[in-house]
Amino acid sequence: MIIYERRAYYHETDQMGVIHHANYFKWMEEARIHFLDELGLSYKKMEEIGIISPIISVGAEYKKSVYFDDIVEIKIFINKYNGIKLDLSYEIYNKTKGYLAIKANSVSCFLKDGNIISLKREYPHFDEVLNNYKEKSDNNE
Amino acid sequence: MIIYERRAYYHETDQMGVIHHANYFKWMEEARIHFLDELGLSYKKMEEIGIISPIISVGAEYKKSVYFDDIVEIKIFINKYNGIKLDLSYEIYNKTKGYLAIKANSVSCFLKDGNIISLKREYPHFDEVLNNYKEKSDNNE
Amino acid sequence: MIIYERRAYYHETDQMGVIHHANYFKWMEEARIHFLDELGLSYKKMEEIGIISPIISVGAEYKKSVYFDDIVEIKIFINKYNGIKLDLSYEIYNKTKGYLAIKANSVSCFLKDGNIISLKREYPHFDEVLNNYKEKSDNNE
Amino acid sequence: MIIYERRAYYHETDQMGVIHHANYFKWMEEARIHFLDELGLSYKKMEEIGIISPIISVGAEYKKSVYFDDIVEIKIFINKYNGIKLDLSYEIYNKTKGYLAIKANSVSCFLKDGNIISLKREYPHFDEVLNNYKEKSDNNE
Repeated sequence: MIIYERRAYYHETDQMGVIHHANYFKWMEEARIHFLDELGLSYKKMEEIGIISPIISVGAEYKKSVYFDDIVEIKIFINKYNGIKLDLSYEIYNKTKGYLAIKANSVSCFLKDGNIISLKREYPHFDEVLNNYKEKSDNNE
Repeated sequence: MIIYERRAYYHETDQMGVIHHANYFKWMEEARIHFLDELGLSYKKMEEIGIISPIISVGAEYKKSVYFDDIVEIKIFINKYNGIKLDLSYEIYNKTKGYLAIKANSVSCFLKDGNIISLKREYPHFDEVLNNYKEKSDNNE
Repeated sequence: MIIYERRAYYHETDQMGVIHHANYFKWMEEARIHFLDELGLSYKKMEEIGIISPIISVGAEYKKSVYFDDIVEIKIFINKYNGIKLDLSYEIYNKTKGYLAIKANSVSCFLKDGNIISLKREYPHFDEVLNNYKEKSDNNE
Repeated sequence: MIIYERRAYYHETDQMGVIHHANYFKWMEEARIHFLDELGLSYKKMEEIGIISPIISVGAEYKKSVYFDDIVEIKIFINKYNGIKLDLSYEIYNKTKGYLAIKANSVSCFLKDGNIISLKREYPHFDEVLNNYKEKSDNNE
């Protein structure tokens, strides 16, 4: 299980005194990039070879708040992956307060020269790594 | 139909050359506040009398991109409203490019002194205004 | 005098209950782009012909606060312009509260293919427009 | 010397392909809070006892760029401290690229119940800690 840990910054709060709800999508992006890094699929390198990974959809359920200076742990799960679309779940756990704060998800794809590509066909190594992670995490749960 | 119009700012782009996907939740917040203002329910005044309106859940489907300097129009629809939870839909239309860019939704509630309140019971005027808008927009479609 | 008007958004506040100080640099960017637009020098078009305008330095003095929903007016003055560097001053006036909130400045240049360019030499029209504005606003004060 | 290290996030880039210039003021805030934490002056705790620390002025010189995924080190120096105003310098060093990217500064004060307070008088312990750090770092340079 790959976990991304990070602190909630002051500039991410709003005048309700909690982290502004839009910021969690930024944290999820950080977690996703960390996740790919940990799998050896550096997003930085992907972009260098001309692959970008736009978001197709996202969603979030805000269960409890995150406050300035809280430490959060973000766990990523692969929901579905078919070689083209990557459907991820996120659990944002407020480690400082000891509760699950947000459940979220994202679907992204991979584009090269403006066209959706099949990682399965064109980057079989990336494809294999993602499938392996999915399998391992499915078994462990 | 209440419409919120706004320009896409340079600082909202990312290195993919489009508006970063997290920013649309900020635009939706602006649109929601504009919408409440237009209905005579100033969110600023709500906060002044101690009501806050936290987000319970959001979602977005990114269909097409918005680029720096594009003008967008955001339409808000009341999906469901039961006196307690306000379930809204948003269509973010890229006016400059002439296409629907994003479909999104949010569910929010109203809190006073940390407790969920029923607008229906405690602020019948707010409740009536929201119900009227819902009725009118349901009929027009 | 070109003036840029804009409302302070909820998502721009922090838990001090005021607009977060970093956001004013975003507003200044919006004002600068508006200013160039008004002069007929669309920054969008500049980027389309390969010119970017990076910031060399900025500064701000925070005199009074801006609050959620306040309307601000941003006035831009050309301090110095030598054909290469554009040194601007900004006054961010809180129109809702009736006071000057922030005094700020920025210095930017123009790059093409990674090299600093002289607008004076390479885009004499842009250069002339900026000089005319400077002259007019110097005389009016 | 207290150093704050952090990675540059994707969502902090703009379409110039570099970190947007306004974001560095957010990083400086993170660094400042880290700095106070390391000195045993938790900003979170300060706010809990009713002290806030608004920014009076900031400035930055952008010398070189920071790119997505770069690691930066931010060093903080106390320029001046008189018991009331805290005048800090920042060096944002791009560790990944091996160069100094930004030189910056901030002046902040401390407010309680809306009034500027003298740390020297009212929180002599905070005052002492800041003076000690200043002395030590002045001697080491």
